[in-house]
Amino acid sequence: MRELGEFALIERINAGRVQAPGVLLGPGDDAAMVAAPDGRFVVTTDMLVEGRHFRLDWSGPRDIGSKAIAQNAADVVAMGAVPTAFVVALGCPADTPVEVIDGLTDGMWAEASRAGGSIAGGDVVRSPQLVISVTAFGDLDGRAPITRAGARVGDTVAVAGRLGWSAAGLAVLSTGVDPADELLAEALAAHRVPRPPYSAVLAAIADAAAGADDSDASPQQGVLEARRVSEPSSLAAFGSEGIIGSPAARSAAAIPTALTDISDGLLADLGHIAEASRVAVDIRSTALRDPELEAIARHLDADAAQWILTGGEDHAFVGTWPADRELPPGWTPIGRVLAGHGVTVDGVRRPGNGGWESFSGVDSASEPEPR
Amino acid sequence: MRELGEFALIERINAGRVQAPGVLLGPGDDAAMVAAPDGRFVVTTDMLVEGRHFRLDWSGPRDIGSKAIAQNAADVVAMGAVPTAFVVALGCPADTPVEVIDGLTDGMWAEASRAGGSIAGGDVVRSPQLVISVTAFGDLDGRAPITRAGARVGDTVAVAGRLGWSAAGLAVLSTGVDPADELLAEALAAHRVPRPPYSAVLAAIADAAAGADDSDASPQQGVLEARRVSEPSSLAAFGSEGIIGSPAARSAAAIPTALTDISDGLLADLGHIAEASRVAVDIRSTALRDPELEAIARHLDADAAQWILTGGEDHAFVGTWPADRELPPGWTPIGRVLAGHGVTVDGVRRPGNGGWESFSGVDSASEPEPR
Repeated sequence: MRELGEFALIERINAGRVQAPGVLLGPGDDAAMVAAPDGRFVVTTDMLVEGRHFRLDWSGPRDIGSKAIAQNAADVVAMGAVPTAFVVALGCPADTPVEVIDGLTDGMWAEASRAGGSIAGGDVVRSPQLVISVTAFGDLDGRAPITRAGARVGDTVAVAGRLGWSAAGLAVLSTGVDPADELLAEALAAHRVPRPPYSAVLAAIADAAAGADDSDASPQQGVLEARRVSEPSSLAAFGSEGIIGSPAARSAAAIPTALTDISDGLLADLGHIAEASRVAVDIRSTALRDPELEAIARHLDADAAQWILTGGEDHAFVGTWPADRELPPGWTPIGRVLAGHGVTVDGVRRPGNGGWESFSGVDSASEPEPR
Repeated sequence: MRELGEFALIERINAGRVQAPGVLLGPGDDAAMVAAPDGRFVVTTDMLVEGRHFRLDWSGPRDIGSKAIAQNAADVVAMGAVPTAFVVALGCPADTPVEVIDGLTDGMWAEASRAGGSIAGGDVVRSPQLVISVTAFGDLDGRAPITRAGARVGDTVAVAGRLGWSAAGLAVLSTGVDPADELLAEALAAHRVPRPPYSAVLAAIADAAAGADDSDASPQQGVLEARRVSEPSSLAAFGSEGIIGSPAARSAAAIPTALTDISDGLLADLGHIAEASRVAVDIRSTALRDPELEAIARHLDADAAQWILTGGEDHAFVGTWPADRELPPGWTPIGRVLAGHGVTVDGVRRPGNGGWESFSGVDSASEPEPR
């Protein structure tokens, strides 16, 4: 990379890339320009540091690039927004093989495309180890953002996506067991490249929006709702395609009252919802059981429930939903919102609650460690 | 910081901060939400790595925080946009004193406020050394962005802000000379905290916009111009305040045909404009002379012209302007756009052209080194 130089490297990174329609001005100037059709945009940023958040001997460059985009896109979708664009600042040692950069950027572009956006620009600097800083943008198409603060007593708690598989994959890597077994390989893949179920959220919102367009009342009104200056088209790719067909089903479509992606662990992230919403949450352990994950846990002499409750990085979604409406496809009920505070499992508070904090643990760890 | 933990640290960083009006939803959820009144936003990102872009023994935390914001805000302003918000991803060793974080974030907030925005959110992770990744946003209020590609043969090349002072300050630090002298101290300050002359750009644009509102024709029309959905108010703070008062003067107001901030060095950044615009640029060395800087150079046995032509990091602005219009206040003519390609000084091409590339130089350097 030292031989290539910064400007040639940037040219190489951007060569042949096709920007998403929302990127009005791509790389090559002092700044990029991105569309924000309803007059606001959702924005989130995450930094990944080599040795702390990933290891090049445990994950390929392409996987790491995908993961960096996925965890940011999941935060955008967790606001109820459709990802539109990303910018990436990349720090790397001068002796980084250019193939590593190619893999990272290819993985980023692939996941950006899967999430519905593209990489509008970035920065490349020299750094003692790889550092990837992603900022992601999303469009709410005039809707209010779905925060962590809207859960109401009586709501149904539901998840979309698998829980604990990334933690299981990390356990496979940590124990050094041969992942020849199909399930172990699947856990490994889940750890290396999370696949946030963006469409489970976005299709639900698209269907609710379609239902709302048919009726007189808007499903949410508030100071955070934009003047609608755009066509309600950005969700079209996600909604109504054979998922919910009839007007009757459509009128039952709901959106979450609170929503987050699971990056710190289910208990920790539900704790954030409970705190922001000033409610309590109780989840049923039986609703969370995963026979395949239990098989892996037996093999590794580990606890599947611990992975499910405290493992982060699957970037599944957990939301609270109106109890009188059907859950949309892809969502599994796991518990209930109650009066009070904190999170319980089968009515019992677990010590510590688990979850990932950036300054806990030992320095060589690459992943969340249960406390 | 290890004792404090991630969540307490984030709470401390955000305590008592007042967000700018454009930040519709601040820190505390999966993502923030920022206003983009004209339906698009300008975005840029830069990463600063300890030991490469700054040294804690050469600059205080507050200065480093200010610099990180300033260099991103300058990129936003270099598009002709008004800074609205920033997000910051911060990597730091677990043993970082919390006072260092306080200084960094105080500096960031101060410069964000000076530029016209606030810090809408961020991420804090553990890293072997300090890494600061800033993403900055700006609003064009319906105008076309001012890219590097619009320079036309015959345009006047002009700069706003001082050149070479950051390089001089770096030389003071590198040579270890006692900066008791007032000029040396001033150079040191310029190196530690660049002060991009945001208002020289934004006042010029505000005055041109005010002039355009008085006439029938818009100064720029093109695919990049937004539907105007906002009140033309975001520039009000920068424009027309005793700078240009009369309607006659107003009709003479101009905006640059091309614009960039000087981060890689004057010759290198003018080279970017020349390349993007497919023109040549010739600058007059006499127009760039700075007696104070020459006094510093004599003291350090250095070359002031070299600092001026190749020193980056002052984040002054250089633009090309219609030759038949008066330059706005704060702008100094330094040369002319010609047919051809490349950049010359007094008609002569300098070997190498100088300028900063991320993967050149030695690893312990904290700053641009002339080549």
